[in-house]
Amino acid sequence: MDSQMSSIQCNGFQASGIAAGIKKKAGSRDLGLIVSDTPATVAGIFTTNQVQAAPVVLSRERVVGGVCRGIIINSGCANCYTGETGMEHARQMTQQVASLLGVAPEEILVASTGVIGAQLPMERLQTGIPAAVQALAPQGWPNLAEAIMTTDTVPKLLQRQGVIDGCPFSIVATAKGAGMICPNMATMLCFACTDVAVEADRLSAMLREAVNPSLNSMTVDGDMSTNDTVLLLANGRSGVRLNTPERVRIFQKQLNGLLLDMAKWLLQDAEGATKLVTIWVEGAATSQEARRIADTIANSSLVKTAFFGQDANWGRIIAAAGRAGVTFDPACLDVAFDDVLMVQQGQYCGAEAENRVTRIMHQPAFTLRLNLHTGKARACVYTCDFSIDYVKINADYRS
Amino acid sequence: MDSQMSSIQCNGFQASGIAAGIKKKAGSRDLGLIVSDTPATVAGIFTTNQVQAAPVVLSRERVVGGVCRGIIINSGCANCYTGETGMEHARQMTQQVASLLGVAPEEILVASTGVIGAQLPMERLQTGIPAAVQALAPQGWPNLAEAIMTTDTVPKLLQRQGVIDGCPFSIVATAKGAGMICPNMATMLCFACTDVAVEADRLSAMLREAVNPSLNSMTVDGDMSTNDTVLLLANGRSGVRLNTPERVRIFQKQLNGLLLDMAKWLLQDAEGATKLVTIWVEGAATSQEARRIADTIANSSLVKTAFFGQDANWGRIIAAAGRAGVTFDPACLDVAFDDVLMVQQGQYCGAEAENRVTRIMHQPAFTLRLNLHTGKARACVYTCDFSIDYVKINADYRS
Repeated sequence: MDSQMSSIQCNGFQASGIAAGIKKKAGSRDLGLIVSDTPATVAGIFTTNQVQAAPVVLSRERVVGGVCRGIIINSGCANCYTGETGMEHARQMTQQVASLLGVAPEEILVASTGVIGAQLPMERLQTGIPAAVQALAPQGWPNLAEAIMTTDTVPKLLQRQGVIDGCPFSIVATAKGAGMICPNMATMLCFACTDVAVEADRLSAMLREAVNPSLNSMTVDGDMSTNDTVLLLANGRSGVRLNTPERVRIFQKQLNGLLLDMAKWLLQDAEGATKLVTIWVEGAATSQEARRIADTIANSSLVKTAFFGQDANWGRIIAAAGRAGVTFDPACLDVAFDDVLMVQQGQYCGAEAENRVTRIMHQPAFTLRLNLHTGKARACVYTCDFSIDYVKINADYRS
Repeated sequence: MDSQMSSIQCNGFQASGIAAGIKKKAGSRDLGLIVSDTPATVAGIFTTNQVQAAPVVLSRERVVGGVCRGIIINSGCANCYTGETGMEHARQMTQQVASLLGVAPEEILVASTGVIGAQLPMERLQTGIPAAVQALAPQGWPNLAEAIMTTDTVPKLLQRQGVIDGCPFSIVATAKGAGMICPNMATMLCFACTDVAVEADRLSAMLREAVNPSLNSMTVDGDMSTNDTVLLLANGRSGVRLNTPERVRIFQKQLNGLLLDMAKWLLQDAEGATKLVTIWVEGAATSQEARRIADTIANSSLVKTAFFGQDANWGRIIAAAGRAGVTFDPACLDVAFDDVLMVQQGQYCGAEAENRVTRIMHQPAFTLRLNLHTGKARACVYTCDFSIDYVKINADYRS
């Protein structure tokens, strides 16, 4: 744990992460808890997969109430496709936490991540939950961040601070998710807590605005998870109340930046990833069309393996754009890497441009830009490369 | 070349495959030619990608005429995204062939495969084309099959023979395509020749009927090519005329079988592939919905890496089905591998079933079946696994 992480706190929130024996590897942290000392408003965004894990179903119901005291999270088992037994397990987890904290079960949310189809080891959870409550501490965030990891290689914890009318506020967020990540939903698990005061409807709108261009605009492998959950809690303990448009604007900017940083971090630590690639599609007729082309490129196995090979194979990029179901004139297309044009108005820019692009592709992060010259709309998506290690990790995941 | 392949012939057709120096590796066959001694009727199916190679544009125009004398094919360069120069090169190729054969250029079709974005080395083609004409022979099919290969590891050549009213007929087909293969278009290059006599409209309908459940129902990597071309020539030299429904039925059956065998062979030799997986989605409300789920599973990186890992990770299969945009009740779902149920009515069938499925997954080919229990429609798609070698091949392809 680095010293920067260990100093992260948010007024009136406590967190913990302990080893409950859910993961195969003994001693790994796999049970996390976040608690607000006072009732917090809450907003949530969940997977749109037709198959939804039990904790998603339960938390989605409860988040409507707009009030939350805590979130219990386990890794090592997704509690998905587990039927009525799985629903009962999710409820039991929240009941045990609620009873230990002396709050209503409806004020406790739950999230799970791990293998689909297995039942939770409830005896271990029943022993683990009191230990997680016991371990709660204002500086418990790094342990929590570790407890929610699956194939992630590093725990992810970020903080942003701001000042509104002389009064400081803070947002802390942790997230996990290195595979089964695809845009157009709230991706992976992400929990954010802030000490501002704000109504639930406003909080929900702000969360949506921050998630769309960040966690909802990234893809690792095009596979939408059954357990995706993003929760944002606001307990008002800083004394900052978001009751004017200007205050909302200041807070929104920090929240957007925090979740975008988190999205990029998730991609940098994605399964087997060696490259973070930002894809801008510009000059489209509509932003939906721009997004569709960006998504198709971002999920193309051939494009992603070429990124891994550091191969400026622009033909694959154009072929992917061409199958996105969007009408454009290939002869008008520009393709650039960072500031180097590789194809201009449908013409290949030559070996020197390609050499410069190859050097750009050797960097750990770069931007790919397509301009369709059809209209004025644009869209941005984040992706990573597709490596030998991705296949190794996912061929061996359960073994 | 095995002895079976070397004996393949089709009445009145000649073929050749020579090394013209287009591929980087010296001495590799990279230019192929098919010629019918007499005018043949022709049908074609082409890529639906928005970006289409010059030879696709030209051949699509010419196939409308319904008459063909020959097809010139090169590997090593896709002649795609090559502008007006590329169109002129495609036309020149057919003109040179036509003039050497003494036929009209409009009766010569052209196909190319290889890297996108590079211009054809026309000097080498101008030297190569006369050599390809010179090499034409009734038994030239194996050389042709070799000349159209890219990352394929074996040349693909198949023959079917039948008898209609005591008169024998034959169909010969060759194909290439180991990556950038995805359903919903005529996939890869495939050339089939037969000695039956049939009108162009009928031939076209028969080709469509044979391609839909075979070449259009397979995926390697979800990446639709810019050069996909399937051509079927019929020169009538067997004396068999498809002028009754019964005769059409007999021929169609052979054509369907031939193209399905070819589709499976392409998948078995797909880039890095170690498994051929047939996916049936049954009990759907409509065949379109069944197909959408089958396609989503067939293209899921997580499912395909689990196939490679021989891991009976049915959670990933259900998660992929859930994101296909089709409404179904997860609690009603059956999932089976070959004849072994792994999930029945939404319930996991236990460790013994899983062990049996793991043994099935160790075989080079198996069938995955989902039953939604929503309706009576179904669809079938063929796919392969996603291996470390796929990434290696595609990270290094151009280097």
